[in-house]
Amino acid sequence: MKKRILWINPLGTSAFDEPMRASFETEVEPDVRVDVVSLGKGPEHLEYHYYEALVLPDILHAVKRAENQGYDGAVIGCFYDPGLREAREIVRDMVIAAPAEAALHVAATLGDTFSIIVGRRKWIPAMRENVEKYGFGGRLASFKSLGMGVPDFHADERRTMSALIECAKEAVEKDRAEVIVLGCTIEFGFYKEIQRIVGVPVIDATLAPLKYAEFLIEIKKRFGWGHSKEGGYESPPVDEILGWGLDSDWGTEGLWKE
Amino acid sequence: MKKRILWINPLGTSAFDEPMRASFETEVEPDVRVDVVSLGKGPEHLEYHYYEALVLPDILHAVKRAENQGYDGAVIGCFYDPGLREAREIVRDMVIAAPAEAALHVAATLGDTFSIIVGRRKWIPAMRENVEKYGFGGRLASFKSLGMGVPDFHADERRTMSALIECAKEAVEKDRAEVIVLGCTIEFGFYKEIQRIVGVPVIDATLAPLKYAEFLIEIKKRFGWGHSKEGGYESPPVDEILGWGLDSDWGTEGLWKE
Amino acid sequence: MKKRILWINPLGTSAFDEPMRASFETEVEPDVRVDVVSLGKGPEHLEYHYYEALVLPDILHAVKRAENQGYDGAVIGCFYDPGLREAREIVRDMVIAAPAEAALHVAATLGDTFSIIVGRRKWIPAMRENVEKYGFGGRLASFKSLGMGVPDFHADERRTMSALIECAKEAVEKDRAEVIVLGCTIEFGFYKEIQRIVGVPVIDATLAPLKYAEFLIEIKKRFGWGHSKEGGYESPPVDEILGWGLDSDWGTEGLWKE
Amino acid sequence: MKKRILWINPLGTSAFDEPMRASFETEVEPDVRVDVVSLGKGPEHLEYHYYEALVLPDILHAVKRAENQGYDGAVIGCFYDPGLREAREIVRDMVIAAPAEAALHVAATLGDTFSIIVGRRKWIPAMRENVEKYGFGGRLASFKSLGMGVPDFHADERRTMSALIECAKEAVEKDRAEVIVLGCTIEFGFYKEIQRIVGVPVIDATLAPLKYAEFLIEIKKRFGWGHSKEGGYESPPVDEILGWGLDSDWGTEGLWKE
Amino acid sequence: MKKRILWINPLGTSAFDEPMRASFETEVEPDVRVDVVSLGKGPEHLEYHYYEALVLPDILHAVKRAENQGYDGAVIGCFYDPGLREAREIVRDMVIAAPAEAALHVAATLGDTFSIIVGRRKWIPAMRENVEKYGFGGRLASFKSLGMGVPDFHADERRTMSALIECAKEAVEKDRAEVIVLGCTIEFGFYKEIQRIVGVPVIDATLAPLKYAEFLIEIKKRFGWGHSKEGGYESPPVDEILGWGLDSDWGTEGLWKE
Amino acid sequence: MKKRILWINPLGTSAFDEPMRASFETEVEPDVRVDVVSLGKGPEHLEYHYYEALVLPDILHAVKRAENQGYDGAVIGCFYDPGLREAREIVRDMVIAAPAEAALHVAATLGDTFSIIVGRRKWIPAMRENVEKYGFGGRLASFKSLGMGVPDFHADERRTMSALIECAKEAVEKDRAEVIVLGCTIEFGFYKEIQRIVGVPVIDATLAPLKYAEFLIEIKKRFGWGHSKEGGYESPPVDEILGWGLDSDWGTEGLWKE
Repeated sequence: MKKRILWINPLGTSAFDEPMRASFETEVEPDVRVDVVSLGKGPEHLEYHYYEALVLPDILHAVKRAENQGYDGAVIGCFYDPGLREAREIVRDMVIAAPAEAALHVAATLGDTFSIIVGRRKWIPAMRENVEKYGFGGRLASFKSLGMGVPDFHADERRTMSALIECAKEAVEKDRAEVIVLGCTIEFGFYKEIQRIVGVPVIDATLAPLKYAEFLIEIKKRFGWGHSKEGGYESPPVDEILGWGLDSDWGTEGLWKE
Repeated sequence: MKKRILWINPLGTSAFDEPMRASFETEVEPDVRVDVVSLGKGPEHLEYHYYEALVLPDILHAVKRAENQGYDGAVIGCFYDPGLREAREIVRDMVIAAPAEAALHVAATLGDTFSIIVGRRKWIPAMRENVEKYGFGGRLASFKSLGMGVPDFHADERRTMSALIECAKEAVEKDRAEVIVLGCTIEFGFYKEIQRIVGVPVIDATLAPLKYAEFLIEIKKRFGWGHSKEGGYESPPVDEILGWGLDSDWGTEGLWKE
Repeated sequence: MKKRILWINPLGTSAFDEPMRASFETEVEPDVRVDVVSLGKGPEHLEYHYYEALVLPDILHAVKRAENQGYDGAVIGCFYDPGLREAREIVRDMVIAAPAEAALHVAATLGDTFSIIVGRRKWIPAMRENVEKYGFGGRLASFKSLGMGVPDFHADERRTMSALIECAKEAVEKDRAEVIVLGCTIEFGFYKEIQRIVGVPVIDATLAPLKYAEFLIEIKKRFGWGHSKEGGYESPPVDEILGWGLDSDWGTEGLWKE
Repeated sequence: MKKRILWINPLGTSAFDEPMRASFETEVEPDVRVDVVSLGKGPEHLEYHYYEALVLPDILHAVKRAENQGYDGAVIGCFYDPGLREAREIVRDMVIAAPAEAALHVAATLGDTFSIIVGRRKWIPAMRENVEKYGFGGRLASFKSLGMGVPDFHADERRTMSALIECAKEAVEKDRAEVIVLGCTIEFGFYKEIQRIVGVPVIDATLAPLKYAEFLIEIKKRFGWGHSKEGGYESPPVDEILGWGLDSDWGTEGLWKE
Repeated sequence: MKKRILWINPLGTSAFDEPMRASFETEVEPDVRVDVVSLGKGPEHLEYHYYEALVLPDILHAVKRAENQGYDGAVIGCFYDPGLREAREIVRDMVIAAPAEAALHVAATLGDTFSIIVGRRKWIPAMRENVEKYGFGGRLASFKSLGMGVPDFHADERRTMSALIECAKEAVEKDRAEVIVLGCTIEFGFYKEIQRIVGVPVIDATLAPLKYAEFLIEIKKRFGWGHSKEGGYESPPVDEILGWGLDSDWGTEGLWKE
Repeated sequence: MKKRILWINPLGTSAFDEPMRASFETEVEPDVRVDVVSLGKGPEHLEYHYYEALVLPDILHAVKRAENQGYDGAVIGCFYDPGLREAREIVRDMVIAAPAEAALHVAATLGDTFSIIVGRRKWIPAMRENVEKYGFGGRLASFKSLGMGVPDFHADERRTMSALIECAKEAVEKDRAEVIVLGCTIEFGFYKEIQRIVGVPVIDATLAPLKYAEFLIEIKKRFGWGHSKEGGYESPPVDEILGWGLDSDWGTEGLWKE
């Protein structure tokens, strides 16, 4: 059963595309092919919600295009999970995964409580809202903040690693976290070492949604369990989209078909 | 103390701009001037979250432009409250109001529980999430659904009125709602008659945020109580926006200044 | 549209009446007149719930008398919000505001989380209960306690200011509060300086309910949105009050009329 | 170990005192003596929160007087639990019980969920708030309303019984309640028959707090487990009460001693 | 009214049986007889959930045997409350108490918030889940961990006492707990001294459920208020148990009768 | 990467083993081998919590034996998820899945709200507690009860199917469920037809945990993300188990090794 997954880096920069693709290639199951794209234009990180807003239409169009091209699933590669609801609304059959949702489902299965390590305090309110929304508010031990922006993570990786380990240790020892979640996709490449040192599961925000997407595709293909189209994820009617000229106004001619 | 408010109809159609402006004009205090704009392009309603996503950047740019033009406050005219967090993030001093937040604050002050009358079941998940997020989940008596889309509301106003009254009565009698909230800005023009007949406060989703905006402007001007810039509403750095060329890529040259 | 507001200091002492009146006078809108009264007898502060209980009937009679005299709204001037439910029950058309409810609605609109600075630990349980009741439990960053009683606040204002600033800073930096709420009406006169130094909105517990009362009056007069009389705020029948002689037993002859 | 309990009917009428005393006498343990008092003046029922407010000081003074007279515990006989917090604040050693708190603790121990049968819809908001406050919101199956006022309960007892049974049955069958709570002390005398017919525990709102008071006295006397005086129940300082003349102003000379 | 209570130490060791019996004997009311049994085989403490699982059938059979022998109530002597739900399911008329449930009901009645002192961090997740389940999550000030296993408690009692006092003080002063709960039945013998020094109620995990059992028996005998048999506590049908040979497979011949 | 999963039917009957194995065989990925066992002795269904308690030790020993035999994961085949916590505690590296946890994670990912179809009302309290514990209480649209016991499900499958469809339709239309969860593993074989007719995802309680186990094994093997051994899932020390003779007392000699 062939499966195709599109990982969307919702950024203007393509700097992370190839490293991520290479890392993903060795982690998916043999029958899975994963591609990585970014958006061509836009911000280089999404720390600010304005940046999320800017790229939201492009994320959704990338998602819909992927469905048209026969992808089985897409991952929206930012820990704010931007456009998760909207993407599930517009797809017909494809499944959508996102880092926070996937990582928290995994964390809640592996331990009683978890801490999320973020870059800056700024990120916390929106992420806390997601934690609550996904149902895991009662399992949140703490947010730990590195005091680093996204661009800093790979600028000096030893410094980042050491800050991550310090935060993780404090979370486990003081806040009684049983699992650590890395709260940014750009915190990739670090989980294994932290896990080895701190001794609890450390959930990487790229691998968790990638594998969760595989899982969702698997149950969709086998059992027909996809996003419910009754209620919140009911799709917009294509004739409305075309009738109002949304396709030409947003440069997506040909994207929408009945 | 002169106050200027911009009401943003986050729609491609300008059909509601003038009727709303006229209705607002008589309801604001003497020192307040309210303008109404729509977006020039985009969907004619926002029932689907994809539509919200499409207009989100334009909403935010309208908000920022308004701040540059000296407006004191803006209202985002859709009961999903699209872009509320993002708008509060990008403004420096202006205050932002939105229908659901304002209406629920009012409803929670006026009675123990409230029911929200929506057009279609589709709307409920996102709105319920907002009710929870704003803190009023424990006060929600019920969602009542009219089984009508936004375009139907003013197509046959007598039929709409009668459906609204039936829903409101059932909410008050069966669900023990003490206040009714009309869950769509396009349900405007109906509240007074429903209120007269049903005998509990019926909160209109255009007037509530308009007056709440006045209130927020008043306390901002007098006491400096605006959206906190520490934490979630910290603004994106202008040099990043300009450095990445977001202004030219999104056609907003001149919008962002230090 | 003339509006009259009565601020009730639910205390035996009138010491705060004139300073408050003077301060309020400059903060209300031109068409608003605000009067300040205290109760003539009773405790000099309400730190203990017994004191609240003692003055509760007098608060309510002051409220009802105000309605008879044509006031449009009343504010119950204590951060425990004593008698808020009861006052809304007995009025016919007047609106009632109270410090905690008003301040928390404002705080929740201005930031993600807030801390409340109280005088003593003693106050916290009842106030925390109110925070939960109003729906903002999930937004509470912390209570900070000054370790000072009400009479201390204006005994040495420089010491109070310095303690307030220290608490506020710790709330913002350590507890990640985005907004500060001063949890006592007698903490008046301090907010501006704290706000200047700490850099987040600092909500004063006298000004917030005063302006919220203006707002409530405005929407009551324009739209008829007053406290719902269906359910919890249903008023007691006057014939019962008179029939049982409650008016003569409590010395309120003439207060209650059909 | 002799125990003395004072049951306070917080009403102006003494009509229920003797029937209650007679019923209680046979239900307490041999070493317990229970007295019943009412307030001499005041309303004949407490359906309205204004009535609660009126009698609140007298309730508290009855409580304090009881402590002075050597009572070990007091029960505040109204299902709104008026003055429960305040009473626990002012006592030094006595324990205080109240109907809703006691009945809900019992109900939560006996089954998964419970329904509360009230007289009128009016009562629900304040009672629901108590259910939440005591921690049992997640266990509440429903409120059922008889559509009867307090004076109706014993006006035609067969009609009342039949209405109670109908409500209880519906609660058990439709709302899946496993326990029924009678939500008014004046619903006394009915529980046994309803229980026999409906087949689940039916908690009487007079017997539950009476026995809970016995239990609290027992653990107070044996283990010293009384209401904590650290925090919310810290008592007001007697010198403040006397210094401000609260005793003479409220006619309670001699009530307060160091 | 004679009452018989069986305290079940769900352990293989009988070391605690006689000391507990002796201590209980002086604390029950004159008409109550309390026996203490342990299980004959099994672990010497229940810190691990596997140990709980092993003894669970034996706990339940001890409970059922007690009912057959005419006991009125049983207490399951471990703060995890193992088998509480199951025991209430299998009994017909007997009442069941358990330490955490009883202690938390008492604590919630005596103060606003409580802290639970556990031996090791390991215990917290299961206990926290119980706190939530019983409805007291909002009242939990903190868990404090002694860093001691069950066997350590009475190995060096002075060291244990000093650690308990330190934890309790910190809970009261830093976490603002108003009541302390000792989170293990083997922490018996210490409460009085801690209470004397720390000055808030300190709930012992053996005495609380013992007295709560007395209370439950009392209301069962007088009013018929036992565990509801409608819903979750519906008993398994004896003919099924016998028909499947569960009695012979588990060596409980004669235990189950219609 | 070979994976071995053990499905444990926690029952005395082996009647479901072979049909389940056959059905699972075609649904797992090519590199997965799944075996099905039952317990040899014990009840034929687990509707009653006493039955769960009886088989709990055998479930855990089957789990531990499976780990010793090289299985990568085990599924506990009952929708009460009996022993889930305990099983995760005793394993070293194996992962454990269970029906309710897995099905609810899937349901929460696929739609806003879900309804669970149970056999009898009896089941609801324990299951509702699990829904809350797993974090999905806010997503629960309703429990629907078929009024059928486990043995009825396959006695007359057409009657069962028709009852399931009726419940599912009512859940979707009246309770606004967006996903249906079949709340019993013995409701297997029905989901596809219900799904076809009702038009929303219908989660089968056998396939969901089977595939979730595959997913958990996959992330365990690749990333080392297994159940955290810090905190609640810390394993009991083998020397304690052996030292107390638990292995010989429970007939599990050789099961536990350092």
